[in-house]
Amino acid sequence: MINVSIVGATGYAGEELIDILLKHPETRIKSISAKIDKPQPICDIFPRFKARIDLVCDLPDVKKIASISDLVFLALPHTVSMGIAPLLLRAGKKVIDLSADYRLKDTKVYEKFYQVKLKDKLNLEKAVYGLPELYRVKIKQADFIANPGCYPTVSILALAPVVALGIADIDSIIIDAKSGVTGAGRKLAEGFLFSEANEDFKAYKVNVHQHSPEIDQELSKLAGKKIKTTFVPHLLPLNRGILATIYVKKAKASGLRPQGLVDLYKKFYKKEPFVRIKEEGSFPRLKDVVHTNFCDIGVKDEGDRMIIIAAIDNLLKGAAGQAVQNMNIMYNFAESSGLL
Amino acid sequence: MINVSIVGATGYAGEELIDILLKHPETRIKSISAKIDKPQPICDIFPRFKARIDLVCDLPDVKKIASISDLVFLALPHTVSMGIAPLLLRAGKKVIDLSADYRLKDTKVYEKFYQVKLKDKLNLEKAVYGLPELYRVKIKQADFIANPGCYPTVSILALAPVVALGIADIDSIIIDAKSGVTGAGRKLAEGFLFSEANEDFKAYKVNVHQHSPEIDQELSKLAGKKIKTTFVPHLLPLNRGILATIYVKKAKASGLRPQGLVDLYKKFYKKEPFVRIKEEGSFPRLKDVVHTNFCDIGVKDEGDRMIIIAAIDNLLKGAAGQAVQNMNIMYNFAESSGLL
Amino acid sequence: MINVSIVGATGYAGEELIDILLKHPETRIKSISAKIDKPQPICDIFPRFKARIDLVCDLPDVKKIASISDLVFLALPHTVSMGIAPLLLRAGKKVIDLSADYRLKDTKVYEKFYQVKLKDKLNLEKAVYGLPELYRVKIKQADFIANPGCYPTVSILALAPVVALGIADIDSIIIDAKSGVTGAGRKLAEGFLFSEANEDFKAYKVNVHQHSPEIDQELSKLAGKKIKTTFVPHLLPLNRGILATIYVKKAKASGLRPQGLVDLYKKFYKKEPFVRIKEEGSFPRLKDVVHTNFCDIGVKDEGDRMIIIAAIDNLLKGAAGQAVQNMNIMYNFAESSGLL
Amino acid sequence: MINVSIVGATGYAGEELIDILLKHPETRIKSISAKIDKPQPICDIFPRFKARIDLVCDLPDVKKIASISDLVFLALPHTVSMGIAPLLLRAGKKVIDLSADYRLKDTKVYEKFYQVKLKDKLNLEKAVYGLPELYRVKIKQADFIANPGCYPTVSILALAPVVALGIADIDSIIIDAKSGVTGAGRKLAEGFLFSEANEDFKAYKVNVHQHSPEIDQELSKLAGKKIKTTFVPHLLPLNRGILATIYVKKAKASGLRPQGLVDLYKKFYKKEPFVRIKEEGSFPRLKDVVHTNFCDIGVKDEGDRMIIIAAIDNLLKGAAGQAVQNMNIMYNFAESSGLL
Repeated sequence: MINVSIVGATGYAGEELIDILLKHPETRIKSISAKIDKPQPICDIFPRFKARIDLVCDLPDVKKIASISDLVFLALPHTVSMGIAPLLLRAGKKVIDLSADYRLKDTKVYEKFYQVKLKDKLNLEKAVYGLPELYRVKIKQADFIANPGCYPTVSILALAPVVALGIADIDSIIIDAKSGVTGAGRKLAEGFLFSEANEDFKAYKVNVHQHSPEIDQELSKLAGKKIKTTFVPHLLPLNRGILATIYVKKAKASGLRPQGLVDLYKKFYKKEPFVRIKEEGSFPRLKDVVHTNFCDIGVKDEGDRMIIIAAIDNLLKGAAGQAVQNMNIMYNFAESSGLL
Repeated sequence: MINVSIVGATGYAGEELIDILLKHPETRIKSISAKIDKPQPICDIFPRFKARIDLVCDLPDVKKIASISDLVFLALPHTVSMGIAPLLLRAGKKVIDLSADYRLKDTKVYEKFYQVKLKDKLNLEKAVYGLPELYRVKIKQADFIANPGCYPTVSILALAPVVALGIADIDSIIIDAKSGVTGAGRKLAEGFLFSEANEDFKAYKVNVHQHSPEIDQELSKLAGKKIKTTFVPHLLPLNRGILATIYVKKAKASGLRPQGLVDLYKKFYKKEPFVRIKEEGSFPRLKDVVHTNFCDIGVKDEGDRMIIIAAIDNLLKGAAGQAVQNMNIMYNFAESSGLL
Repeated sequence: MINVSIVGATGYAGEELIDILLKHPETRIKSISAKIDKPQPICDIFPRFKARIDLVCDLPDVKKIASISDLVFLALPHTVSMGIAPLLLRAGKKVIDLSADYRLKDTKVYEKFYQVKLKDKLNLEKAVYGLPELYRVKIKQADFIANPGCYPTVSILALAPVVALGIADIDSIIIDAKSGVTGAGRKLAEGFLFSEANEDFKAYKVNVHQHSPEIDQELSKLAGKKIKTTFVPHLLPLNRGILATIYVKKAKASGLRPQGLVDLYKKFYKKEPFVRIKEEGSFPRLKDVVHTNFCDIGVKDEGDRMIIIAAIDNLLKGAAGQAVQNMNIMYNFAESSGLL
Repeated sequence: MINVSIVGATGYAGEELIDILLKHPETRIKSISAKIDKPQPICDIFPRFKARIDLVCDLPDVKKIASISDLVFLALPHTVSMGIAPLLLRAGKKVIDLSADYRLKDTKVYEKFYQVKLKDKLNLEKAVYGLPELYRVKIKQADFIANPGCYPTVSILALAPVVALGIADIDSIIIDAKSGVTGAGRKLAEGFLFSEANEDFKAYKVNVHQHSPEIDQELSKLAGKKIKTTFVPHLLPLNRGILATIYVKKAKASGLRPQGLVDLYKKFYKKEPFVRIKEEGSFPRLKDVVHTNFCDIGVKDEGDRMIIIAAIDNLLKGAAGQAVQNMNIMYNFAESSGLL
């Protein structure tokens, strides 16, 4: 049983964290904080939690949070995390940061895409990229997790087998991704108004999204060479879920035997509790993954090229669920604890 | 052929006005204006109009608007209209105001519900309430129209026959209304974000909505006595349309013969081009009225009480469509011109 | 730890039952069956359950089901349940029936509204109406539960306090209810197609819905006199949830003190784990109850009449969740086990 | 003024045809027919048309239709059209067929993808593929139009400039298309139920859709060589609209100057009334094209590859609107008559 705190609890990821941690048999939520005008019972902010939790949400008092918590989740906007994480880490606390502040190892890339200075290079090196399927061993020993972005989670899991095994022509990767509106957070912008997004569909940040370098960084590590994918995100008129349709040519000497692609994926993810490979001819749909921590992947071999389709819940496997999966690994809890 | 201008063109009602007036065989749009940071082609604001109109949207220059227009539509927020309407009227222009500023004849009621001072009592008296089904003769001669609210339009049309003919027990009227999200305008508020309103449904302003006194004012006029309805609006997760389900007891001596209710409604609205009465046992649905200027009404006689269900498109019969219907009447154009 | 079976697992309520029972610490799902063409792994029918359960769904073999189960959930269409329930009961099994077959104590009313003969009058008498807030003591000792309908659950919980305590004028009750589309089950009918129901809203079965007599039966019992409510259901363009807006006049000598209504509801439901009363001026929204077993209720005292608004998830508190709550009570499990 | 009939009026495309033709200043709808159990006023089938049209919908009587019509629209399912079109053509009538029966010039391909025998090879040769932007001259003289499919319309318009001008590497074309649910017609299948499609998103017929050969046929004609595109359609949870995101590599010697792509598209479609090219950095959204006959196209030059995004309303430019555009061309009416 560990004591946890949530900083940034009023966003969608924070809300999901509360929900999961309340059901988790090994955690006690000790404090909930956020940028907020005045202290307020969390149940006034989220009436859905009434009769389940009694805490008051207040501005984060980092000292106090450190004194009562073993682990702190930071569900904060980009750039805010790096003001708080160092203090908690210095106090010897474990931290799982859901923002983008510690994901990009190349500071220049971070500063270009997020348009701010990176203030905390020290902890950038310590931060383990929290994708369990690739870094479980490191996560087990980590004090500090940079929890992956939602688009990167689904894209990297979809591509890892063919990139790591040299089957993909790494110059040919096209990721056509579609996300529900909660991916934008609780942001007040005209484009996210119901009357604007409902019955609409569009691409945005066409091949210039800030998740592009995160995807490329991790795929490049897997390939051992620099990869630059083409990445086009779209906004779906639904609340939750990301589905990515990925097009890749095969490497010249892929050595892939006919009908071997599904098996290859099954083998690659054999021991993974939260990756499910669809049978030949079957593909993921959002319905099957929303409100779960699963990533579903379907693949199709088209001769000289491959089509890979993957889906997750952007708030769970793409944020809060994965954060708890990381916590479970760090503390040797059952990896699916609180997540099934 | 007349020259018209639209002030407040960037809201949903303004957008609909542009669409209708572009199709209208008797109007030429001469200017488009709105509260806007800098002049912008209207097609940059609404790309859907590209290749149909070329005007630039700018801040309203009332003098210039008056000099080039026969008629001006004000699709402005409440309280802004009464700053502009008097100037246009003084310049001898006809004005159709879609705001609430000139709808309530009792200044105190207006000031209570809209929380502002009414500045232009002079024109309040001149303003004709623009519900053609009740006030066609006056509209024909009017220079100044107070275009009805969306909830009042559907509620008054639904109730007019039984109230005017003394069939309703006027103390028993309950209006349970449900509106799509465009009813709230393009307002940036958390409750209207897609991720909040989608897959949600709720009542709001329970029996304290600002459209209540407008409904009551018109029904009281019809009844010849003071009516206070119970009015509960709800927010539907869809873009357009209002459906109101209305419960009324019959007056003691209603004199209504069995199976007479549908006929009574058909007779009452016999000559109305935009009111359609459903056959016995059949009721309106939003699908049939959205993107039209029709009001569909279905009624059911339950012995001592009646159930009346009515539906409109809140942006058309509830706003821009009715405004154009009023214009058609004022100028002796075919009443459905531009509206079918 | 008990052994349970689900008959009729391929409908929406059956699907929810699987989800809850998989999370429930005291149950083992032993068999899953449904009207199905050929045996099929349940994960092929519902890929969302993959990696969580391995059973094959087959036609129900009642003998076998009885031999391996302590308790059987029947999530069957009306009229099918009464063919299976007697066999299981005779075999000494406990049964929770989610259909309407055993809810109406007056056989004639059942036969009128469901248009079939009631074949099993014997067990009709044994069946306990499974609304824990009213019948917890009986449920504790029951072998056979008639699980309430979704509209009746929300309507009865909303009205019970004012009806039971004599505060309501029982001739004046109007229930304006709005339900998501899963309420219709997985039925193939044109009106439930996405392109028909999306962006639409309408009333249906206006005051002739088959849940009307169920509501009236239970309210009449509470009042000690015959009650006939006015009940108009509507179809919402969303997946889950029912919200009912209820209008009631006060009884002549209601004795209700000003501002007393919220308190009265709080007191009435003080010990209920799944009923939450909103504070004065605050009302339920679907968002807060979907994916939960809660019923949220808000009330407003309007002098001579009251407005009561209540909301549930139709598939949980309105079906599968309530079924599990009943099971928990029958077996002395924690009442919220599997449900939080 | 011409006399027209609609056969197959009860599907979504037929419904749109009625709506457009009622507004069209040059057409009189003489008859409306469909596969229907018994004759029924079209306003009972589509109450939205009440007060606008009075015809009765009946089974098609081809002889009678021929005797009263100048032009007949066939909005029929695939394979049904080829039973009716020959009779009308033999009677000297003009025919616009919205089905796929006469679109594919290679009979074997048709029979493979639609799984039926082609019965009417005679008229297959006469049929002009009704995409005005490519075949306006032929359409002007045609008696028989094979109206393009929805996916082909948006895909071909998006790719025509770079394929026809030799700028595209024709082996590299990937079309990731997303369509609203009306694209499936009024078909009763579980996957199109509201509760299934709402809040869901998925790919279907991955690279095996029957519109693939239609796209490839037309692009091959433009290129003068055989093209096989990769085409993956997806189902969007909204009613209307298709958006296609297209990825193409440049041909080796494309000769395209930097920043030249937008200009090239503008030039190619300069005289087209229904194709709108977005400015550099701007891309289409469904909102701007639904309920219009426009195709919006945005392009991005990414060095060695191009991203092309195009959007249409599947029921208008993708079906009924384009059919009327073809009629306008055939009869020398203003090309946008009835369509703005």
